[in-house]
Amino acid sequence: MDESVEVWLGRARGSVEHGLDQALPAEDEEPRTLHAAMRYSVLGRGKRLRPLLCLAAERAVAGSEAGRNDHALGAACAVEMVHAYSLIHDDLPALDNDDLRRGRPTCHKVFGEAIAILAGDALLTLAFAQLQQPGMARILALAAGTPSGMVAGQVADLEANRASADADIVRRIHLAKTAALIRASVELGAMAARADAGQLAPLRAFGEAIGLAFQITDDLLDRSGSTAELGKTAGKDESQSKATFPAAVGTAAAEAEAGRLLRAALAALDRLPSGADPLRALAGQMVSRTK
Amino acid sequence: MDESVEVWLGRARGSVEHGLDQALPAEDEEPRTLHAAMRYSVLGRGKRLRPLLCLAAERAVAGSEAGRNDHALGAACAVEMVHAYSLIHDDLPALDNDDLRRGRPTCHKVFGEAIAILAGDALLTLAFAQLQQPGMARILALAAGTPSGMVAGQVADLEANRASADADIVRRIHLAKTAALIRASVELGAMAARADAGQLAPLRAFGEAIGLAFQITDDLLDRSGSTAELGKTAGKDESQSKATFPAAVGTAAAEAEAGRLLRAALAALDRLPSGADPLRALAGQMVSRTK
Repeated sequence: MDESVEVWLGRARGSVEHGLDQALPAEDEEPRTLHAAMRYSVLGRGKRLRPLLCLAAERAVAGSEAGRNDHALGAACAVEMVHAYSLIHDDLPALDNDDLRRGRPTCHKVFGEAIAILAGDALLTLAFAQLQQPGMARILALAAGTPSGMVAGQVADLEANRASADADIVRRIHLAKTAALIRASVELGAMAARADAGQLAPLRAFGEAIGLAFQITDDLLDRSGSTAELGKTAGKDESQSKATFPAAVGTAAAEAEAGRLLRAALAALDRLPSGADPLRALAGQMVSRTK
Repeated sequence: MDESVEVWLGRARGSVEHGLDQALPAEDEEPRTLHAAMRYSVLGRGKRLRPLLCLAAERAVAGSEAGRNDHALGAACAVEMVHAYSLIHDDLPALDNDDLRRGRPTCHKVFGEAIAILAGDALLTLAFAQLQQPGMARILALAAGTPSGMVAGQVADLEANRASADADIVRRIHLAKTAALIRASVELGAMAARADAGQLAPLRAFGEAIGLAFQITDDLLDRSGSTAELGKTAGKDESQSKATFPAAVGTAAAEAEAGRLLRAALAALDRLPSGADPLRALAGQMVSRTK
């Protein structure tokens, strides 16, 4: 990676960590258990891919070195809070029933189910308080909700029959479960930079393609990685009979599809100047990652 | 009640029912189970107090007979969705573990815990998509979240020790758990009518006072009403050792406090013209209700 891109991403990550810390309620403020559970689930861990995509999209449109503004940072924190809430609720006993997340016990293992449900609710709610431009709440709600957003994808994922799920069905699940929020992360960053329709379209296409590639990579890692490497229980897709892309088409074809989607994502950025380099670098990381 | 007020409230209720029906995903759209659970939990039942307060506040500010506009109806649907989501999650086995709501089996009894959690999540998310004015998302998020909104109140409610909870502690719990969303319902309706700060302040005071009176009335009914009358399990506060106002100060003092708060709420509306009559009528209903 170009050194200046690496420096930019490091600074952006610092902004996100600081922004999240500031936006979350303090741990010594009542109700303390709730706030401790929210902070535990958001701070200190996580790749921050969605907020970094948001800030990198803002930079791609704004073009300047300074790049980041308050609206973009608010949106970046919002998408990370939505991501964190979805992990808390997905890990609950009634859903995926997982004990390990980001290398630590899941929220309900530490704080109990009631607080975990409510901490997820509070994070989803707080996310919408971070958005500072008209139209942003609607974009985030569509990406996080139903019928084409994350909650719909989670339901489809729970209900899918692994045996009969072909590549088209898995793609539709992935679009809703994963790609919609990643596309929204990019879109909100571009909106913060006052992108026009001509700039938004390729960035949306980028977000969707890289979101799909990311989920396929995740499914491949679930098969090949160890629990220690992943920081979450490995092999869950197989043991829970989840419909995944590798299960539908085989490992080699899934790897090829992830590569094709990465190239499509990068091609969508073709006309953007070098300000989009952090976005390009993040896309590469999302597909070549080892955890 | 004045006949014209009754007619107005009937029409407003019709608008709310229609608005909710239109805003919720269709039952034949995938994922069907999720959408069926959302519609089951929102449609057909419920007093619609929060959306009616929203529309009545819009009318109180706008003053005209026509009154209701799209922004107010969107906000009205949003507060009802937030209310419905909170009931679904509060009724879950890990929280209040209740089987009956609005005279029917609770969402998780019908659809299972996983779908109930996700239907609540989807309703909370969809609520924010209904808001059409800048600033509305922040108002709703503060009222629904933490540290002074509904989720914080629910946690405080779960953690409160009935034995040691005095009137001040119960009041703080009620403010967050119930009054914040009711106050926001009024505030969002006033915002839809482009209320200025001088109009917003008394309406906020009204909303907070009537919200507290409403929760005290609810606690009194939980002691005196039957399950059949209430449409939800009666006597739960006592059996779950909840901190309530009647438990802290006794039934007679709680009834007196509800009356005092109703008078304070109505006094806050003193300078508003007859356009505020539906708001006054709703306030009376919220305290004199039998279920």
